[in-house]
Amino acid sequence: MVGRYKSPDEHPFFPEQLLQPVLPPVHYKNVLHRAAASININKLIWDVYFDDLLPRLVREGSDGHCGSSACCDTTILQALSKRIHYGKFVAEAKFRESPDKYSAAIEAQDKDKLMEMLTYKEVEENVKRRVRFKALTFGRVVGTDASPLADPPLKMKPDLVVELYDKWLVPLTKEVEVHYLLRRLDN
Amino acid sequence: MVGRYKSPDEHPFFPEQLLQPVLPPVHYKNVLHRAAASININKLIWDVYFDDLLPRLVREGSDGHCGSSACCDTTILQALSKRIHYGKFVAEAKFRESPDKYSAAIEAQDKDKLMEMLTYKEVEENVKRRVRFKALTFGRVVGTDASPLADPPLKMKPDLVVELYDKWLVPLTKEVEVHYLLRRLDN
Repeated sequence: MVGRYKSPDEHPFFPEQLLQPVLPPVHYKNVLHRAAASININKLIWDVYFDDLLPRLVREGSDGHCGSSACCDTTILQALSKRIHYGKFVAEAKFRESPDKYSAAIEAQDKDKLMEMLTYKEVEENVKRRVRFKALTFGRVVGTDASPLADPPLKMKPDLVVELYDKWLVPLTKEVEVHYLLRRLDN
Repeated sequence: MVGRYKSPDEHPFFPEQLLQPVLPPVHYKNVLHRAAASININKLIWDVYFDDLLPRLVREGSDGHCGSSACCDTTILQALSKRIHYGKFVAEAKFRESPDKYSAAIEAQDKDKLMEMLTYKEVEENVKRRVRFKALTFGRVVGTDASPLADPPLKMKPDLVVELYDKWLVPLTKEVEVHYLLRRLDN
């Protein structure tokens, strides 16, 4: 209703049910190839969230608070979707850096080659380091007296957060990158 | 639509425009006096947010992203409202701890006396210490290499956050407490 899905970094889970925005359109600077608009892997993100991620984050059963759960699910799904679809921008930046390098694989529509080309182990290791650091920082439980502790309690295991990134978030982002690159030379 | 305002710790800003929940009602344990349901200072919170808090948090002018701004405003207003209306639960706990002490002032409907009785300078100082600590922890900017710094950059000035608590959030919470206590002995 406020037009979030007109923004190139937002992707609806139910595109067929969008309301018309009540606000005048914002004119975004166009940095992506127009094929980007047709790439949306939210159905896959939905399945990964409910089948793989959520069972690792909560205990089985119902506490009866379906409304609150649905609100949290929505927030997390939208955050995951946004983070993963940033792959379009990452891919565009990589392509602009070395267009010749990518063009051959794009013309051959060679998915495996593209996946190989856009994978930088070192960058992925750094992402995981940052994720661990963020889990340690933002996952802190602040005690009643706010005294700094050497080993403060955490809301979530940093290892688990790193695992979620390693097994799902990074691969899904790269999947978006490949989707995008495959169409990067479309007329 | 998911029934959040049926929960005793949530307060609508537009109670006259609520949709009927689509979920079956949740049965909450009743810990508050029933007068609690009629206490809602969201109109005041709205004014404080737009007139006092927001001008301290943003630069003047428009960046054109009205939709995103409205979403952020909504999130913050609901968080403020929730935090401030927790005063009902705080007041109930204080009353149960010393019912005789509070009853005289309630019977006399003596607002000033109640405000004085429920003010604990030491507790307020501790709240401000925790707020500062949280601003320092959760307001951190995590650099690209996630290396720990002695003096890390912050998204927001901790002093400002403490000031917002001191001047508005704590007084508004106490206002809810007084409202609640004044009605605590209603038949």
